[in-house]
Amino acid sequence: MTVPAASLGRKHKVTVIGSGNWGTTVTKLVAENTRDHPDVFERDVQMWVYEENVTIAKDSPHYDAAVGDKPQKLTSIINKYHENVKYLPNIALPPNVIANPSLPDAVKDSTILIFNFPHEFIGNICKQMKGHVLPYARGISCIKGVTVTDDNEIELLCEYIGDTLGIYCGALSGANIAIEIANEEWCETTIAYNTPPCDVRGGANSNSPPSNGADHDHKDARGLVSKTKLTPVPADYPPLDHDEFQKLFGRPYFTVSMVSDVVGVSLGGALKNIVAIACGFVEGNGWNNTAKTAVMRRGMLEIIAFGREFFPETIEEKTFWEESAGWGDMIVSCTSARNWRYSKMAVERGVTVQEIERTELNGQKLQGISTTREVCGFLRARGVENKYPLFFAVDGILDGKVKVEDIPKLFRK
Amino acid sequence: MTVPAASLGRKHKVTVIGSGNWGTTVTKLVAENTRDHPDVFERDVQMWVYEENVTIAKDSPHYDAAVGDKPQKLTSIINKYHENVKYLPNIALPPNVIANPSLPDAVKDSTILIFNFPHEFIGNICKQMKGHVLPYARGISCIKGVTVTDDNEIELLCEYIGDTLGIYCGALSGANIAIEIANEEWCETTIAYNTPPCDVRGGANSNSPPSNGADHDHKDARGLVSKTKLTPVPADYPPLDHDEFQKLFGRPYFTVSMVSDVVGVSLGGALKNIVAIACGFVEGNGWNNTAKTAVMRRGMLEIIAFGREFFPETIEEKTFWEESAGWGDMIVSCTSARNWRYSKMAVERGVTVQEIERTELNGQKLQGISTTREVCGFLRARGVENKYPLFFAVDGILDGKVKVEDIPKLFRK
Repeated sequence: MTVPAASLGRKHKVTVIGSGNWGTTVTKLVAENTRDHPDVFERDVQMWVYEENVTIAKDSPHYDAAVGDKPQKLTSIINKYHENVKYLPNIALPPNVIANPSLPDAVKDSTILIFNFPHEFIGNICKQMKGHVLPYARGISCIKGVTVTDDNEIELLCEYIGDTLGIYCGALSGANIAIEIANEEWCETTIAYNTPPCDVRGGANSNSPPSNGADHDHKDARGLVSKTKLTPVPADYPPLDHDEFQKLFGRPYFTVSMVSDVVGVSLGGALKNIVAIACGFVEGNGWNNTAKTAVMRRGMLEIIAFGREFFPETIEEKTFWEESAGWGDMIVSCTSARNWRYSKMAVERGVTVQEIERTELNGQKLQGISTTREVCGFLRARGVENKYPLFFAVDGILDGKVKVEDIPKLFRK
Repeated sequence: MTVPAASLGRKHKVTVIGSGNWGTTVTKLVAENTRDHPDVFERDVQMWVYEENVTIAKDSPHYDAAVGDKPQKLTSIINKYHENVKYLPNIALPPNVIANPSLPDAVKDSTILIFNFPHEFIGNICKQMKGHVLPYARGISCIKGVTVTDDNEIELLCEYIGDTLGIYCGALSGANIAIEIANEEWCETTIAYNTPPCDVRGGANSNSPPSNGADHDHKDARGLVSKTKLTPVPADYPPLDHDEFQKLFGRPYFTVSMVSDVVGVSLGGALKNIVAIACGFVEGNGWNNTAKTAVMRRGMLEIIAFGREFFPETIEEKTFWEESAGWGDMIVSCTSARNWRYSKMAVERGVTVQEIERTELNGQKLQGISTTREVCGFLRARGVENKYPLFFAVDGILDGKVKVEDIPKLFRK
């Protein structure tokens, strides 16, 4: 039986953890939706901001002569002018976005947590959040990827978040470029959320059978009983399943496809960066679009082989083929995104990618490089290098041991 | 038991029917392979050329003062200078390419026929070939696509060729651009060839069980017994299966993947042109790469839905996802090929595509437009418009009844 949301007592409170250009963009669209769905969500959306001092330039419409060049707190600027002048300038945020410099305060009483900050901060931020999060909170991670643990196992970032905080966390990934979405230019995305059995209220959006609120075991990314014992979302909240996340993220300019395959969405989001580096190399070497496309296709086959080999119980191959988080993200990553752009530049200039990181990225790291290193280390330890010729070609090129020109030889019959 | 090719009496003779830029390119690579595999193929490759008179320009290395401006036959030029100066200039052809202006003579005694000319000539050329072709000849069609018959049924072009000539014909399609392959720039392709049961000599490359030369029934694209009764390839020829076509088409710069799914390869090759038109519209309208990618993804889902609906017995979905003829061809068609380029130009200039055909293409037609018209007519007659929103959006835009800006609405939940 579906209980009308309006008759339920409480509403979901939403917090976005992170305020870079992608974090602020997601906060914007989510806040538009909490405003449009007052029966399900609390209107105000908390956005945790790593506090810093910012000087507003004289030519900014937000320049205040009374303040002048005096640095102001970024949270104050956002809450006063409804604009993240530092990370998403010139984009008006809805006034129900509340910037908050305190992580414990920002996540307090929130039932929906959206994780959106650089990969490398995940350990530290989760540690700070521990103990401040509702036991029945649910998460969506916009941080794409996987990590290799100290004992050399592959772990999905969303599952790391969930297990660390004792909650369930899904993942969002797709052919998305933050600034375009901030400008409300149409694109689409995929959200993977395998509704925990304890949250199912007679709906049909979970891989697991409906439990009518009973506390069934939730399965992890490997298909085993999850080590995290979940607390169900209380019955006086609207249910939290695919329909609600569709309401929270879908906009006329942002089409959302909901799936349950958290593994596929996470693997696609992480491993496509290895392929993007390969495409940059090939294109930087002067090869054409058909060669690049061949590399993309081979890369996709290796990503799926990886999923089949290490997540055999849970992988749903159609996520890669059918979803924006699969081929869609692959195409955009290999034609207009960062890993591709800078690896292409490296080959064009005849320098290493590491050199480009120093000279062009101010020491910032390309995600695809660390992913290549981690994933190839993981595969090497298992002695399966021969199944992943493209991944290891990228690894070898980064080491200066393989030449870009040798790529076709990998695929010759 | 495998009989060593060298001990067999006869060798396969190859003819390419067509000599445009793609036809000449394929002839070049096939002739390189007949030269490299003298145990399987006769060295000389016949190329049927629609004869015309050509004047060689004064600045050409092939200009002969004794001939001057006097028009010469294209076949004579090709056979003398080993270059198709009109359709593939500046590319050296192997001397074992023999241009032949007589279609009956070019196909005489050939066991392998490669079809490579514009779609619209297919009826006329097959009519001329009838009665001149060996009953045990086998074909590969490089003409992508499907056609809607007079009684409003979908027919694969390769099957039309096979049925018309009383032979079996497979199909080649992939993320290929002729001039790049002619320049030996690396790319890859897919060849679909469902080895007829009567040709199987204990091999494993057919969907059908091995027949050891017995005359089993061959199945058509719908999974029914083919109306064409095949004559087996005689036992004193080397076998004709995936291995031999790999030898005939694969080059260090041209990686070939052999599959048996003729339906998937043909549908992908035809219907992707509808999607390429849509992508041109969207990009011409100033939308970005993420929006175009979303359209590509939606288009691919409709192509597969089409295959599932009309070829349910034979469709292999993985062809679309995994093969160069699937996503690979889609990407290249929507980023660097003709249908995309000119539909984009139309929107940028604010004119119809039909107008662009007149002003930019000298009246030549864009294949994607006729495919859209034929396929939508076919679908409309069956009352299934609602399952193919993108195809019908393209049809509606061509009619001026739908606006490009409305495309996201088609996909909104």
